[in-house]
Amino acid sequence: MKPNFSLRLRVFNLNCWGIPYLSKHLADRMKRLGDFLNMESFDLALLEEVWSEQDFQYLRQKLLPTYPAAHYFRSGFIGSGLCVFSKHPIQELTQHVYTLNGYPYMVHHGDWFCGKAVGLLVLHLSGLVLNVYVTHLHAEYNRQKDIYLAHRVAQAWELAHFIHHTSKKADVVLLCGDLNLHPKDLGCRLLKEWTGLLDAYLETQDFKGSEEGCTMVPKNCYVNQQELEPFPCGIRIDYVLYKAVSGFYISCKTLKTTTGHEPHSGAPLSDHEALMATLCVRHSPPPHNSSPTHGPAERLPLVSVLREAWTELDLGVAQARWWTTFAGYAIGVGLLLLAALCALVAGGGVREVAILLWTPSVGLVLGAGVVYLFHMQEAKGLCRAQAEIQHVLGRVREAQNLGPESQPALFLEQQERDRSEDQ
Amino acid sequence: MKPNFSLRLRVFNLNCWGIPYLSKHLADRMKRLGDFLNMESFDLALLEEVWSEQDFQYLRQKLLPTYPAAHYFRSGFIGSGLCVFSKHPIQELTQHVYTLNGYPYMVHHGDWFCGKAVGLLVLHLSGLVLNVYVTHLHAEYNRQKDIYLAHRVAQAWELAHFIHHTSKKADVVLLCGDLNLHPKDLGCRLLKEWTGLLDAYLETQDFKGSEEGCTMVPKNCYVNQQELEPFPCGIRIDYVLYKAVSGFYISCKTLKTTTGHEPHSGAPLSDHEALMATLCVRHSPPPHNSSPTHGPAERLPLVSVLREAWTELDLGVAQARWWTTFAGYAIGVGLLLLAALCALVAGGGVREVAILLWTPSVGLVLGAGVVYLFHMQEAKGLCRAQAEIQHVLGRVREAQNLGPESQPALFLEQQERDRSEDQ
Repeated sequence: MKPNFSLRLRVFNLNCWGIPYLSKHLADRMKRLGDFLNMESFDLALLEEVWSEQDFQYLRQKLLPTYPAAHYFRSGFIGSGLCVFSKHPIQELTQHVYTLNGYPYMVHHGDWFCGKAVGLLVLHLSGLVLNVYVTHLHAEYNRQKDIYLAHRVAQAWELAHFIHHTSKKADVVLLCGDLNLHPKDLGCRLLKEWTGLLDAYLETQDFKGSEEGCTMVPKNCYVNQQELEPFPCGIRIDYVLYKAVSGFYISCKTLKTTTGHEPHSGAPLSDHEALMATLCVRHSPPPHNSSPTHGPAERLPLVSVLREAWTELDLGVAQARWWTTFAGYAIGVGLLLLAALCALVAGGGVREVAILLWTPSVGLVLGAGVVYLFHMQEAKGLCRAQAEIQHVLGRVREAQNLGPESQPALFLEQQERDRSEDQ
Repeated sequence: MKPNFSLRLRVFNLNCWGIPYLSKHLADRMKRLGDFLNMESFDLALLEEVWSEQDFQYLRQKLLPTYPAAHYFRSGFIGSGLCVFSKHPIQELTQHVYTLNGYPYMVHHGDWFCGKAVGLLVLHLSGLVLNVYVTHLHAEYNRQKDIYLAHRVAQAWELAHFIHHTSKKADVVLLCGDLNLHPKDLGCRLLKEWTGLLDAYLETQDFKGSEEGCTMVPKNCYVNQQELEPFPCGIRIDYVLYKAVSGFYISCKTLKTTTGHEPHSGAPLSDHEALMATLCVRHSPPPHNSSPTHGPAERLPLVSVLREAWTELDLGVAQARWWTTFAGYAIGVGLLLLAALCALVAGGGVREVAILLWTPSVGLVLGAGVVYLFHMQEAKGLCRAQAEIQHVLGRVREAQNLGPESQPALFLEQQERDRSEDQ
């Protein structure tokens, strides 16, 4: 690699809103997306919510001349919805499916059936190892009463941990996707603090696009206007994040978003806005200390955000355990009911009523059994993330050489319990 | 690090057979295991089938003075059963839960409920980065008609891929566990070929223990003698595998197994035999070419084993798709039956019979629905592994600069289909 090595990388990210039969004008939008990607000829196009493999195949055929490499990340019942198109050969690829991803009985939300995941591609560009991650976290349906908060925090932790463990030999790390997290949300801070990834919107030298970099804006005709009522400018939940390691320097030259409509035809490509970043990777250090141009640098110390995540997960564990207890009682009631019905039939009682009640009783026992098992698994998944965070906190404390007197009350109280769970 | 750097590592591995209430003499065996581990003072003790967290806590308390670091890998409904005890601080830890792990309706086998996984610990020993993996793959219940073969191959692939992606900056990689694979089984060859891991039993300079290094032997009183009838010496399914990267050299000085009883008291510690390896890591190259002392080096070329795995996974996909079709028909039949019953009741027919048949019909529709969803997910999981293997094969072919004429018939036939699925 030459000492004056410089690499320009043009990246496209879009949550495509590709639910077959339900998303409006899907075929037309896919066609226009394909045309746009072919015309712009990015180095990488990373897409989320391509729920139908047929749509991926359509795009693959259409994009083949411009993007010879492509991959669809399969997972869960429906799929992860993630896919990538690359102008450069993909050297390696893998994926990690998140342990926790909502509840199977929240069928109308559907996230559980998707198998949300993070996909990883390793590219070798001019001798540089580039790890590209694409992901889509659990949706937020009610910001005031978010029953999925603990799951999203656990997902953000798994994502950060996956990047941490798989990018150790990468020169540049790039993460794109729909995080379903606002910039100051716990999951977003956790991800940034633990991986050291920088937010292209906050770092870019030149930004063009929607106000405050929002990726869901009220002027997009596909957006549910009611949901965006508390946010007049819109919300920023899709990201391009990056970092350089091992002596490289990466900067964001330009970042563009669409603004409720496709740049050429005027009609939106999706209910989300697309992100288009031009990144520059160099050997040399930056010519001057570039300060964030959009908003303050909002990086809180790692320890503080880890503690916050641990506490949020703890609330999730308590909730999961409440559900297992509740389901346990429901199983008991169902079994008692079944026993009473059997006795009624055997004793020659009102047989028709007994037989009629048989189905709901069996349903209650089976349904409660599934709920019990599910929340048991949920509690285990949350405890696992807690144990990993606790372990990192322990290592950070050791590294900072902090005495026990500086540990906060929360940890002093929990120490005995946690010690028995992890190291 | 000094140029004459040398590190001795003593490692213990055991599948503990720790099913609460079902495994014989569990409390006594856990006590003796704890005493043995304390007495021997290994650097690392890696355990599988510690299904109860209480047993882990018991061991943790007992081993705390000798092994100050410990971790229990939580997953699934029951847990992964994996735990580790280390004399040295654990720098980092994470885990990966296998996508496919048997069938929920095979309750008597129970693997699905466990959430089988691979755990990773990163240790820093005298400046050396050691990645330690512990795992337990799906059990083999019927070698002649193994319905879990495709799942075990997919697990072996995920394990190999996880090691590949997370060990890029490790100096030494160590994998211990119960692979439920015989040495020449496809999964075992796939794992070794893709990761380059060496088998301590085949490489060790000094071996003491059971005949042919078997880890389930007929003379162990806890072993089901009937299952071992085709294998008079026993079977070798537990492994210590290792490799050194980045200029280090690792060798196995000694490997011992228990031989159906604990070395001191005479009673077995488990239905599996324990493995005890003394490994030596050095900077310098080996003084002479050490040849395998136990059996021939059985490494087949990577391409051949990848193709074999791809074919096995393809059979699994066909099977999964057959089940989704079957379940689809069953759902149809169930719905028809329900409609007929409704009509019967509405028409004033034999109401009692109709009501009696209501429960099994609803059960049929729901049950078949779950089977349909499950096998759909299974097919996706198997296709995912196939796509990853196909991608690696593509890269290997490119690296070997093979023309299309040297591609085997299988791949020529499948090329069009696979191209449409992956790159």
